[in-house]
Amino acid sequence: MEKQKRFILPENDIPTQWYNIQADMVNKPMPLLNPVTHRPLAVEDLTHIFCEACSQQELDTEHAWIDIPEEVRDRYKYYRATPLVRAYALEKALDTPAHIFFKNESTNPLGSHKINSALPQCYYCKQEGTTNVTTETGAGQWGAALSYAASVFGLEAAVYQVKISIQQKPYRSSIMRTFGATVEGSPSMSTRAGKNIITREPNHPGSLGTAISEAIELATTTPHCKYTLGSVLNHVTLHQTVIGLEAERQMELAGEYPDQVIACFGGGSNFGGLAFPFMRHNIKDGWKTEFIAAEPASCPKLTRGKFEYDFGDEAGYTPLLPMYTLGHDFKPANIHAGGLRYHGAGVIISQLLKDRLMYGVDIPQLESFDAAILFARTEGIIPAPESGHAIAAVIREARKCKESGESKTILFCLSGHGLIDMTAYDNYINGDLRNYTITDEEIAKSLEAVPEV
Amino acid sequence: MEKQKRFILPENDIPTQWYNIQADMVNKPMPLLNPVTHRPLAVEDLTHIFCEACSQQELDTEHAWIDIPEEVRDRYKYYRATPLVRAYALEKALDTPAHIFFKNESTNPLGSHKINSALPQCYYCKQEGTTNVTTETGAGQWGAALSYAASVFGLEAAVYQVKISIQQKPYRSSIMRTFGATVEGSPSMSTRAGKNIITREPNHPGSLGTAISEAIELATTTPHCKYTLGSVLNHVTLHQTVIGLEAERQMELAGEYPDQVIACFGGGSNFGGLAFPFMRHNIKDGWKTEFIAAEPASCPKLTRGKFEYDFGDEAGYTPLLPMYTLGHDFKPANIHAGGLRYHGAGVIISQLLKDRLMYGVDIPQLESFDAAILFARTEGIIPAPESGHAIAAVIREARKCKESGESKTILFCLSGHGLIDMTAYDNYINGDLRNYTITDEEIAKSLEAVPEV
Repeated sequence: MEKQKRFILPENDIPTQWYNIQADMVNKPMPLLNPVTHRPLAVEDLTHIFCEACSQQELDTEHAWIDIPEEVRDRYKYYRATPLVRAYALEKALDTPAHIFFKNESTNPLGSHKINSALPQCYYCKQEGTTNVTTETGAGQWGAALSYAASVFGLEAAVYQVKISIQQKPYRSSIMRTFGATVEGSPSMSTRAGKNIITREPNHPGSLGTAISEAIELATTTPHCKYTLGSVLNHVTLHQTVIGLEAERQMELAGEYPDQVIACFGGGSNFGGLAFPFMRHNIKDGWKTEFIAAEPASCPKLTRGKFEYDFGDEAGYTPLLPMYTLGHDFKPANIHAGGLRYHGAGVIISQLLKDRLMYGVDIPQLESFDAAILFARTEGIIPAPESGHAIAAVIREARKCKESGESKTILFCLSGHGLIDMTAYDNYINGDLRNYTITDEEIAKSLEAVPEV
Repeated sequence: MEKQKRFILPENDIPTQWYNIQADMVNKPMPLLNPVTHRPLAVEDLTHIFCEACSQQELDTEHAWIDIPEEVRDRYKYYRATPLVRAYALEKALDTPAHIFFKNESTNPLGSHKINSALPQCYYCKQEGTTNVTTETGAGQWGAALSYAASVFGLEAAVYQVKISIQQKPYRSSIMRTFGATVEGSPSMSTRAGKNIITREPNHPGSLGTAISEAIELATTTPHCKYTLGSVLNHVTLHQTVIGLEAERQMELAGEYPDQVIACFGGGSNFGGLAFPFMRHNIKDGWKTEFIAAEPASCPKLTRGKFEYDFGDEAGYTPLLPMYTLGHDFKPANIHAGGLRYHGAGVIISQLLKDRLMYGVDIPQLESFDAAILFARTEGIIPAPESGHAIAAVIREARKCKESGESKTILFCLSGHGLIDMTAYDNYINGDLRNYTITDEEIAKSLEAVPEV
């Protein structure tokens, strides 16, 4: 008989605070810069785009713990705590001595971890008198979560979804509309940024960068409208630490501590959300845990990007962020892991990477689907293509354990399920998926867009 | 602050036995009949179609409790116990004094309750030396669950999916293929039954009845191959009692006992699975609980069918079942709740209905989607169109409570999520869905196919 499979927390044990790693970091992230003056950003520089509370959280390097508002925690209870699961069947299939655990964010009703930040962002917007929210979405996971959260708190939501993603995952747009949101393909003709992009390149498939530009433009030109973001920024990752804080308690219930913490990497929110609470022990007691971010080989900002001040979006509307980047107009290949098609890494993670406290691995698309299918057939959950990258990294490590005989404890984030991504699985099964490579020359060329600071 | 939202059981409290209501019923169901001799069926009459263990369970009127094999219980732990949830947000939207609870089977990794029976059926087949399993699927929920369970226990799976459902829900076929199953649209040209149906009616959209015929034919003409069924039969509902047995303990944790137990109704397995454990208290202590089965108005066997011996499938391959039926070649309208498009009710439930210990309500398609959307926007879970029927029935009862001021406790089964059914939601939002009515004359005509016994 298998020992305990799932480690469950009663809802009273859902964290009451998020963890802000900025307060504990020895080397703080470099400041965000105003894109015009190039001076360090103040909260006031953010509030024309974001709500006040998130703007403050973004720049907060003092408070290690931020209270979760009671109304948000009440809504967390609708689906949290998510289970921590021991992947016995995957371990057996790999014949590995490693102990593999995953935090199962795929049980969230909208299908991914994104809802953890959508709820507080909409809550704060409502509190501050905002009536409309707008955002971008890549794979559609964030857009779906935001649409739901907006409906919970009685806000209108307008979502710019990356064009290629609408074609790949039409059901995600339907989900957003079910919650009452309006959905527009990006680049669109409804914004100046979108029009410029389309004029330059009529068949542009869209990217997170183009969609962010359009959403920000809508927010800054519409009264009582704020922009919300699904990853990259510090406050988003802050909200996602609910994942790692729960996992910390659940690993205690399992009687183990992770040797390796692994998550897929787009902008960094599910990675940071899981990793930061465990990093805090390492900051305090010395660095013993390995933190591994799994990015697509076709969008390799962690493994092959450059640490520079760059924009978070295609059009250059955001503040300048000190980050590992491939250049803000980098056009990622049309891989199915739409949530990982982003040119840069969040600033906290960029600093941690610079300080070698974590590292990235790059996963080719086919390897991510090999891993995802093995996971589905063993653990019974069809992973999001994004999560497939984390699983591939886990499998690499578990195979190393098999070779060395080491019994490492590996913890990863199953950030979402792939039930809306079945077209990708179909393509894979039919042999129609391929890997994408990118040359050093292409990266160097794309980095030319990075502005002088 | 909302009080406790979700009631969770530790995995040690997952039931160790299923509940067989046949043993406790005062009026036992009438016997199943051999379709040729019209004599009461023996276990041996079933084993050429079904595995031995399920054949025995099917006819067992003696043992009220059947052990769940440890290997099956181990796999239940991969996703069970499912949460019992208090629907505070739905209550608030309805402004009702009713307390609404739902058993959330939508958190199951394949998206519905069906996996609860797929696992034991495949386990028993494997134990008995079967190498191949075959089945039918309507909406695809059962086919997906069976494909997963077959992969867990190392069996080949062949699934006949209703043709109209493949068009409506292509992702469900992809899910089956992801688990390694082969999928064929029914009626197909691969069986005699399928060919006959297509010859008679070239554009037949398929139904559960046609798909069952084809799967049974494949099973009985293939060595080491058994047929498996996702609803209707007693052993399937037996396995589903894990839902109600968990809910019983969870309602205790919530400190309430249901006045009304409600579930949607196709063949009866999620309804019986939730209801039977609560019926056992009523058998013992007197009938106080209302049991309400929500069927589509376009397929009204409970509310407008006739109690007769009839076949379970279109071609007449199954034993004769004493059941409420619309006639075994009844062609249900193309509603999106594919899992409810079935002409008859399981024999236990038919007996209970005959004895007026439960009743059916019929829900028009548009009302089911109204209800589903309200549920999504309040509770955050997009329900399967099938479950939308249960929710519509719940809303009717909750509104009655608002009128009367009564604070009833209502428990229903959220049998699955609708993330693969987004085409239906799109159609609804675009105003392209309609109701289907059926006349008494049409029902009378369809009942002419019922055989003389």
